[in-house]
Amino acid sequence: MDLELILSLVRSRAEELGALSDAVWAHPETAFRESFACAALGGHMAARGFSVETGVGGLDTAFRASWGEGSPAVGFLAEYDALPGLSQEAGADERREREPGGPGHGCGHHLLGAGAAGAAVALKEYLQRTGGTGTVVLFGCPAEESGAGKEILGRAGVFDGLDLCFAWHPDTVNCAVGTASLANIILRAGFRGVASHAAAAPERGRSALDACELMNVGANYLREHIPDAVRLHYAYTNSGGASPNVVPEAAELLYYVRAPKIAQARDVAERLHRVAQGAALMTDTALTWTVESEMLDYLPCHTLNRVLDGVLRRLDPPFRPSEPYADSGPCRSISTDVGNVSWLVPTGQLFTACFTPGTHFHTWQMTAQGCSREAKEGMLAAAAAMACAGAAAVEDQDLICRAREEWSAARAGSL
Amino acid sequence: MDLELILSLVRSRAEELGALSDAVWAHPETAFRESFACAALGGHMAARGFSVETGVGGLDTAFRASWGEGSPAVGFLAEYDALPGLSQEAGADERREREPGGPGHGCGHHLLGAGAAGAAVALKEYLQRTGGTGTVVLFGCPAEESGAGKEILGRAGVFDGLDLCFAWHPDTVNCAVGTASLANIILRAGFRGVASHAAAAPERGRSALDACELMNVGANYLREHIPDAVRLHYAYTNSGGASPNVVPEAAELLYYVRAPKIAQARDVAERLHRVAQGAALMTDTALTWTVESEMLDYLPCHTLNRVLDGVLRRLDPPFRPSEPYADSGPCRSISTDVGNVSWLVPTGQLFTACFTPGTHFHTWQMTAQGCSREAKEGMLAAAAAMACAGAAAVEDQDLICRAREEWSAARAGSL
Amino acid sequence: MDLELILSLVRSRAEELGALSDAVWAHPETAFRESFACAALGGHMAARGFSVETGVGGLDTAFRASWGEGSPAVGFLAEYDALPGLSQEAGADERREREPGGPGHGCGHHLLGAGAAGAAVALKEYLQRTGGTGTVVLFGCPAEESGAGKEILGRAGVFDGLDLCFAWHPDTVNCAVGTASLANIILRAGFRGVASHAAAAPERGRSALDACELMNVGANYLREHIPDAVRLHYAYTNSGGASPNVVPEAAELLYYVRAPKIAQARDVAERLHRVAQGAALMTDTALTWTVESEMLDYLPCHTLNRVLDGVLRRLDPPFRPSEPYADSGPCRSISTDVGNVSWLVPTGQLFTACFTPGTHFHTWQMTAQGCSREAKEGMLAAAAAMACAGAAAVEDQDLICRAREEWSAARAGSL
Amino acid sequence: MDLELILSLVRSRAEELGALSDAVWAHPETAFRESFACAALGGHMAARGFSVETGVGGLDTAFRASWGEGSPAVGFLAEYDALPGLSQEAGADERREREPGGPGHGCGHHLLGAGAAGAAVALKEYLQRTGGTGTVVLFGCPAEESGAGKEILGRAGVFDGLDLCFAWHPDTVNCAVGTASLANIILRAGFRGVASHAAAAPERGRSALDACELMNVGANYLREHIPDAVRLHYAYTNSGGASPNVVPEAAELLYYVRAPKIAQARDVAERLHRVAQGAALMTDTALTWTVESEMLDYLPCHTLNRVLDGVLRRLDPPFRPSEPYADSGPCRSISTDVGNVSWLVPTGQLFTACFTPGTHFHTWQMTAQGCSREAKEGMLAAAAAMACAGAAAVEDQDLICRAREEWSAARAGSL
Repeated sequence: MDLELILSLVRSRAEELGALSDAVWAHPETAFRESFACAALGGHMAARGFSVETGVGGLDTAFRASWGEGSPAVGFLAEYDALPGLSQEAGADERREREPGGPGHGCGHHLLGAGAAGAAVALKEYLQRTGGTGTVVLFGCPAEESGAGKEILGRAGVFDGLDLCFAWHPDTVNCAVGTASLANIILRAGFRGVASHAAAAPERGRSALDACELMNVGANYLREHIPDAVRLHYAYTNSGGASPNVVPEAAELLYYVRAPKIAQARDVAERLHRVAQGAALMTDTALTWTVESEMLDYLPCHTLNRVLDGVLRRLDPPFRPSEPYADSGPCRSISTDVGNVSWLVPTGQLFTACFTPGTHFHTWQMTAQGCSREAKEGMLAAAAAMACAGAAAVEDQDLICRAREEWSAARAGSL
Repeated sequence: MDLELILSLVRSRAEELGALSDAVWAHPETAFRESFACAALGGHMAARGFSVETGVGGLDTAFRASWGEGSPAVGFLAEYDALPGLSQEAGADERREREPGGPGHGCGHHLLGAGAAGAAVALKEYLQRTGGTGTVVLFGCPAEESGAGKEILGRAGVFDGLDLCFAWHPDTVNCAVGTASLANIILRAGFRGVASHAAAAPERGRSALDACELMNVGANYLREHIPDAVRLHYAYTNSGGASPNVVPEAAELLYYVRAPKIAQARDVAERLHRVAQGAALMTDTALTWTVESEMLDYLPCHTLNRVLDGVLRRLDPPFRPSEPYADSGPCRSISTDVGNVSWLVPTGQLFTACFTPGTHFHTWQMTAQGCSREAKEGMLAAAAAMACAGAAAVEDQDLICRAREEWSAARAGSL
Repeated sequence: MDLELILSLVRSRAEELGALSDAVWAHPETAFRESFACAALGGHMAARGFSVETGVGGLDTAFRASWGEGSPAVGFLAEYDALPGLSQEAGADERREREPGGPGHGCGHHLLGAGAAGAAVALKEYLQRTGGTGTVVLFGCPAEESGAGKEILGRAGVFDGLDLCFAWHPDTVNCAVGTASLANIILRAGFRGVASHAAAAPERGRSALDACELMNVGANYLREHIPDAVRLHYAYTNSGGASPNVVPEAAELLYYVRAPKIAQARDVAERLHRVAQGAALMTDTALTWTVESEMLDYLPCHTLNRVLDGVLRRLDPPFRPSEPYADSGPCRSISTDVGNVSWLVPTGQLFTACFTPGTHFHTWQMTAQGCSREAKEGMLAAAAAMACAGAAAVEDQDLICRAREEWSAARAGSL
Repeated sequence: MDLELILSLVRSRAEELGALSDAVWAHPETAFRESFACAALGGHMAARGFSVETGVGGLDTAFRASWGEGSPAVGFLAEYDALPGLSQEAGADERREREPGGPGHGCGHHLLGAGAAGAAVALKEYLQRTGGTGTVVLFGCPAEESGAGKEILGRAGVFDGLDLCFAWHPDTVNCAVGTASLANIILRAGFRGVASHAAAAPERGRSALDACELMNVGANYLREHIPDAVRLHYAYTNSGGASPNVVPEAAELLYYVRAPKIAQARDVAERLHRVAQGAALMTDTALTWTVESEMLDYLPCHTLNRVLDGVLRRLDPPFRPSEPYADSGPCRSISTDVGNVSWLVPTGQLFTACFTPGTHFHTWQMTAQGCSREAKEGMLAAAAAMACAGAAAVEDQDLICRAREEWSAARAGSL
């Protein structure tokens, strides 16, 4: 694999990728509403020779951009959704909203999408230059921040036929991702009771808020009897109204159940379902239980990640990892729907430094840094690393075999 | 009805009734263990011409003593069980136990039994003197304090065939009972989980104590949504062991659900059952639900009670009621299995003053006063009043008809 | 007192009072925002010879309209605030909002205000005709539905100097109010903890939502140990945010503590304060405790109410009460800040039928009936009855003395 | 250090050590009541030339047996308390109690005490043979299973003056202990309220049981906000009585707070104290808070443990460890008051296999195996290893220096 060639291909696109990233940053759109970003990235790929289909998997703001044919089929994952309430002016180091109360790219997904596009285009051009064959696919994946878009796309078969897949995320460090992320099941418990005047006839009321509170008490008792690493947390999406006068008829909770392994999370989610049923029984209310989404734990593919790591080490500073690649370690306390893809196809993943050390995710500070020169450099490094790893796989069938063997074993061991 | 004759008949037995009462007082026996009292009262009745059957209704310490034949059949209810922990020397006005930790007659049931016997014997002798006909029955009823013996006897048909029934209770006032008592359903919720070491493997445990606590939290939430007059209270009969080290495998609660009407109590008891089921669901434990007993609310039979009241007013002070008879008023916050009999047959009930005003029930102070001259005088007054009311009924068929009509209507209205 | 004269005075204003009521109905304004209503009623009074001061007691939408001088000083209470969310077209018997989501007069306060104005004007004109002397005052009282405007006005001394006061409320029945309403203390418990990522670092978070839930659990345990008639109910005014990801930093509850007597409510409110302090201690959060308002229980002034009742009985049907005046009975399970006035000055109160039987308060159905002929008739009947009672007091110094004596005793007995 | 000499010295005592162990096994005594064991072990030591003082540290069943003088002073820890309810016949592999309901050695402390005695005697005899100097001390430590006897002895200064200390525990494996045990703080929360009849006057009661339950709800909410490794568990030592009739006046909980580090445990214990205070505030009850004992986490002294490990490796199978010595790893989920000694003096600790693999601690199965040949072999191996390590220290001043340096640093780092 010719690293220098790929680096020069990526470099030649630096300006247009930066512009693409900036445009998405300037049009922040929250989950499932990313019509500008979808059009911008899809158009970018179409203009560079990819055949683009939007609305894949039943999601309006998803797309599939492919070039080439036959095997191996190498995928890249683009995300582009923003976060509510994080609007901020570029470069401002104190709070200054561009649009008051509006969304903002506080998690760097504008870079993520453009970087993945850059990787796909560079791999296509590399194969054209070197006469390699295969299929290169960029997936436009909506709704990572909430909604788990890739879970929906995966169920719809959008990722079928891939041999390998690559993902990245902007970060404050540079490394290939050797550790898992937490599986996360998102659950909604809605209770419906009977309204009544709380002073005049409380005995005729059946309180949906009582049901929520009793479910939460039950869940807090549950904590003692689940594995330490499982996380359970909840919020009221409807606390039944602000008037103490009325026995609340309807109320609703949103729960996250996170665990190192999806099987653990499912086990606890079932137990939590029984807690909710118990709360409904206790209060004569009716329960509506919804599994909103399941983010699976990321199955690291060390075979691919070591390739990504190797490429990073050949780049100039600051993109050389300072730590050796570690294929184990504590699970990261985050969840991502890249995990769902990693259960469908061997998926390599890396982080590059786009933001100053210490910047927290999901903050306006991260929005503010989203158009910096450093952010774009990190994006290009990620694009190059992913394109290189893709090229390595195309040129080395054995790498693909080893990746798939590792992945089959990991999947089997994780259930 | 010849009041003077009955009074003289009761008076003539004063000494032997006092002795009978004292003997039972001196052999205090708790619920279902009243073998001395059962033998003493049964023997008393047999020696006075009654035919006595013990062990009726499947209860070893119950008896039925009857004399005469045909209608009307008039019943009297005797109780004789003592209370744990209330042993006390007679007349001592500071705490001095006769038997350390032993039981004592802190609710006056020794007087109650002997007084009811006195009423039955007096009515028999009155009928013999006056040539009246009918059946006189004294029921020896175990376990009023706990266990609701009369519920068991009633289910076994022991009270079948009665036209009327009379009951009394020693008190600090004199009155016929115009008001209801609370229905009381006694429930047992046992939970079984899985034991585990609480430090080393809490996630493998399923805590029966958690289930109890969550049931209680649920019950406290329920309070807002049940009628004001309903009472719900509970105690741990097994809190799962005294070692924090162990996730408790078994634990148990005892609940009382009291309400002015048995139908209300049953409704709340059903809801409480669902609370218990909810707690079991929440904790992966198995619930064993037992309805221990149902004490029904006392249906006052004003027709009979007014007769009792009338007799009391013809007695010398202090047994003349100071208040007019009231056939309504707030329900008394006590429960008694006399209520169960009152749903099977019209049942008159009265209180007479046996203890000094201000004495609390279920105290050693009440045990201490159990052999006083005043207590015995109150007992004789009650015996006379009940015998008189029985005689009035024998001599006035219409009284019985009115009592039964009132009772049918009250029963129908209470369901 | 010349009833016929007063009736004709009220009748002569029927059209303008109806128009005033309709205008306020058509401009529904919620608590403390009643600027249209305040101007309309104030202007009405000024145009009829009253001297009007707005902004009294520090409340922008309050006014005091007075006429005459010297004693006796007779007050009338006007209210005019609407309820959020109850916008509805007049006369529509299915849900049809005039302004989607907007407020509406679902409690009839547009009638209440105009009716009180009618009473004050009628009394003034009666005194002018009959040569009577005294002071007539109409109080424009904002925020009865929430905020307890009369408590604020009372503290500011706005009701000082009155000898008597009258209030009314539109209803489905006709009667002078012989019974108390519930005292109601409105409390706000705000908790502040420490935000943290609920998956990555829950041990660093201190949850304000935990504090709210634990306070509520504690309050539900408290129910067993407070008098039956006390009502405790609550709602979340801030449940800490809708994202399960974040340990909530701030959360807030609104509590009502209602009781037949303000002293009971204060006692329970103090205990509830300790429950809130306990919840803060349990969760390492800081508590902000605010007594928002105290609605006192209405002290019925039977002396005045019997006069109101007597007038009603002299009116044509349907305004003749069907039930005899009862000066006791169960407390009404509602609360009103008229109660606060009743502790400052003897206050008569009546209801007249303005809505069809069975209409519930605080519903769009009540909004819909607010402009009907029947509603206006009820308003005029109330105006007449209050004006008559005011006239009777002016003409009978002894009536005032008896009212004040009764009131002094009732106040003393209620503390 | 002459391993063969020590082995032969231990071997020569095999029979008497086995008899001593069997005698203690046959007289099982629970915490603080070990008078037989104290006398037996003390007598054993006195008979072998040690000067024995009983009742040290204020504990009747503690002793200190010392020989020699000057430095280094090497200590050995003997335990000998049994567990309630674990009486079982020796060798029986089904449940057969020797004394029904009686205590039994279900944790092997009879071996522990005799083995420690064997180590002390062997070291004394070794020094006599080799002319070495120093002080050898055996500490008879009561109440390890509950009560934390060594905490009390430590506070009384009983371990003062030691240079090193050694402990062991019978187990199913052979190894020197490279990992910490959990610190454990034992807490008692007693609540006192006001009794009242739960049906007649619940509003006058203040329930101590309510306080316990609310404390426990609070503690379960706390779980989310403490580090994963902390363990919190509780039991009712008084649940307020078995009668639902009575609002419970007094109730009590026993809590364990365990954590890898005592500092963490103390922090959580303080927060738990506030939870208890909060529960008292919520219920108008008075809290009595008692810190019963603090078992500190065991600070492993790797310098000494590697010596113990080295000796084990030179023994015949089966006492050669199969795993390499590991000086880190997850904390063991147990707690022991050997931890308290380890904070006062560098303390080496080892396990030897005395029971068949898979035998659980604190079971009758372990009692049953307590007199087997294998158990005694394990005891002798432990005695030999500890004596050898003691000898090595006496002969190598540098070893002591290194142990104390390591220990000082570990102690400093653990606070």
